[in-house]
Amino acid sequence: MNSRRHFLHKLSASLIALPAFSGRELNEIQLLNEKAYEGPVLRVAILGLGSYGTRVADAMKTCTRAKLVGAVSGTPSKIKDWQTKYGIPEKNCYNYENFDQIKNNPDIDAVYIITPNSLHAPFAIRTAKAGKHVICEKPMALNAKEGMTMIAACKAANVKLLVGYRVHFEPKTLEIIRMRNEGELGKVMFFQGLCGFRIGDPSQWRLNKALAGGGSMMDIGIYAINGSRYLVGEEPVWVTAQETKTDPVKFKEGVDETITFQLGFPSGVIASCLSTYSMNNLDRFYLNCEKGWAEMQPSTGYGPIKARTNKGELTHTHVTHQTVQMDEMSDIILGGKQPLVPVDGEEGLKDLKIIDAIFMAVKTGKKESLSL
Amino acid sequence: MNSRRHFLHKLSASLIALPAFSGRELNEIQLLNEKAYEGPVLRVAILGLGSYGTRVADAMKTCTRAKLVGAVSGTPSKIKDWQTKYGIPEKNCYNYENFDQIKNNPDIDAVYIITPNSLHAPFAIRTAKAGKHVICEKPMALNAKEGMTMIAACKAANVKLLVGYRVHFEPKTLEIIRMRNEGELGKVMFFQGLCGFRIGDPSQWRLNKALAGGGSMMDIGIYAINGSRYLVGEEPVWVTAQETKTDPVKFKEGVDETITFQLGFPSGVIASCLSTYSMNNLDRFYLNCEKGWAEMQPSTGYGPIKARTNKGELTHTHVTHQTVQMDEMSDIILGGKQPLVPVDGEEGLKDLKIIDAIFMAVKTGKKESLSL
Repeated sequence: MNSRRHFLHKLSASLIALPAFSGRELNEIQLLNEKAYEGPVLRVAILGLGSYGTRVADAMKTCTRAKLVGAVSGTPSKIKDWQTKYGIPEKNCYNYENFDQIKNNPDIDAVYIITPNSLHAPFAIRTAKAGKHVICEKPMALNAKEGMTMIAACKAANVKLLVGYRVHFEPKTLEIIRMRNEGELGKVMFFQGLCGFRIGDPSQWRLNKALAGGGSMMDIGIYAINGSRYLVGEEPVWVTAQETKTDPVKFKEGVDETITFQLGFPSGVIASCLSTYSMNNLDRFYLNCEKGWAEMQPSTGYGPIKARTNKGELTHTHVTHQTVQMDEMSDIILGGKQPLVPVDGEEGLKDLKIIDAIFMAVKTGKKESLSL
Repeated sequence: MNSRRHFLHKLSASLIALPAFSGRELNEIQLLNEKAYEGPVLRVAILGLGSYGTRVADAMKTCTRAKLVGAVSGTPSKIKDWQTKYGIPEKNCYNYENFDQIKNNPDIDAVYIITPNSLHAPFAIRTAKAGKHVICEKPMALNAKEGMTMIAACKAANVKLLVGYRVHFEPKTLEIIRMRNEGELGKVMFFQGLCGFRIGDPSQWRLNKALAGGGSMMDIGIYAINGSRYLVGEEPVWVTAQETKTDPVKFKEGVDETITFQLGFPSGVIASCLSTYSMNNLDRFYLNCEKGWAEMQPSTGYGPIKARTNKGELTHTHVTHQTVQMDEMSDIILGGKQPLVPVDGEEGLKDLKIIDAIFMAVKTGKKESLSL
């Protein structure tokens, strides 16, 4: 190992131990990486070449430890476009019929599934069976039961299963978690997560129960669920939920427009959350603690994230979330790195169990117990 | 009527029609009033000479249409202190035994009841029977049933019954209501009210179920309830609620520490609220609308209130809430003025009905219907 690689190796090891990166550290890593990264690179095929897939592909241009090398789609013209745009060789392109042949391709390590939710599980299972690592957009699956089949399939195939929780690598988020962990905020008392936007085109898959598995909750409410867990730092033990529908034509049976929900945590913390497809610009987290508070707005958008605590504004440099996510996922898959906030299948499954319970609580009108 | 009085009369009439005061207008009124107010003055006795009573008494020093003239207390030394401090004549002082004799005192128009909650109804009824107008701190009573007896007693005695909703006269609050009423914010979608503080001395009456009728909800949660109603501009039709208690020694049976609750409105608006006695500095309102938003923080504290909308920060001048309240209540009682947001017994009763339903929803774990 030459001295530069040795230094990078040490830096990387120290990062594993660090609970969060400062903006300066991230810049340093990036500079070093741009100059001299010689470590392992995760070679990724993206499956599902829609708008978010394109966002990830664009972000991966500046990755150093991950590289977009393949494309999978049911639409031949999209494949052609991506080949041109991202320099993807013909031999790394698949359609949904011949996808299983990816098992014979030694130049692809992982498949990132960015399809409508209902296709996550079947494609994750096919990917695992092909011996490739699985990265899957959130929500991981349509429900917890389906999520468990994905975990089992990846375990059986001895491949990693990661879920696209990009804000688990977001520096301001990690700094607040660090402050909480080190007692700077005192005991957590209350979390509030308001997540939503006004959804457009009524014909999109996100408003189709069969494809999406629900409505706003699967898409945007999951941020409040997940955020409550990583900011409170406990797992909830009960949930209550209330649904409101003002437009039953746009939001059909099983497609939730607006749900308010509350999560109870063992310490007595309550999270009070909103998930909606019918309001503008809701992207707000608020954490109330005994000695301080933290506020994020925007809290989970593509960034830059804005965060303040009782000590002032956080000033960490914004780096494109999907770039950091894919580099970090490379370290997790190839280097065995343990991120501060998990992004594995078990993490995805917990959110699905909560979503299942929220839908149940809406139906029963009762407090539903959770056991995560 | 001389020309100055005529001008003041016209100004006052125009204020009745105006939905909100600008800071400039309020300053003008005050200047005019200090110089030249010659209209009727409401002569008030305060009953209950504790810390909030003292705050009101101090604020009334700069009132022009209301004047503190009497004091009622069970503690003789407090009466003496107030006589000295506020120049109250002996003949306008009463204890709880001889209070009913106030009916023979032609120099007192109204009694402002600022006692522990359980004494509101009995003293309001005695005040009404003495033929004096009743001003009562909020919550108006321990529950809706008791509130109704107060309304009935005041109606039978032909006296007015007002409740101390001081923020109903707060200029920034009124400006947001004006913006909403005139369609500048568009359709209201969501309200969030987080109200709480960390309560101190465990021996105080506010933590005694018999005196307070509950815990945080009666004291501070009522601001979120009331705020949801005046900011949404509708009356809720259902409520759900969840209670959490982390300190059952401090917060005994029937004394709520923390309750999250949700109110559903006919248009589909949801209010998501928190009432707590165990968190720091929670005084936040947020109104999400189709075309804009409004945010208040602090939203109901003694002020200055801070408010922003999508159009920017509101800059109305802060005037001590209790001063404005008492001057406005003078206009309501003596001049028949109709405030933009009601402060009468019916208004107080609506909040009590909601509180009753919240406590019921905590107990049943179910959605409780409201009919206000």
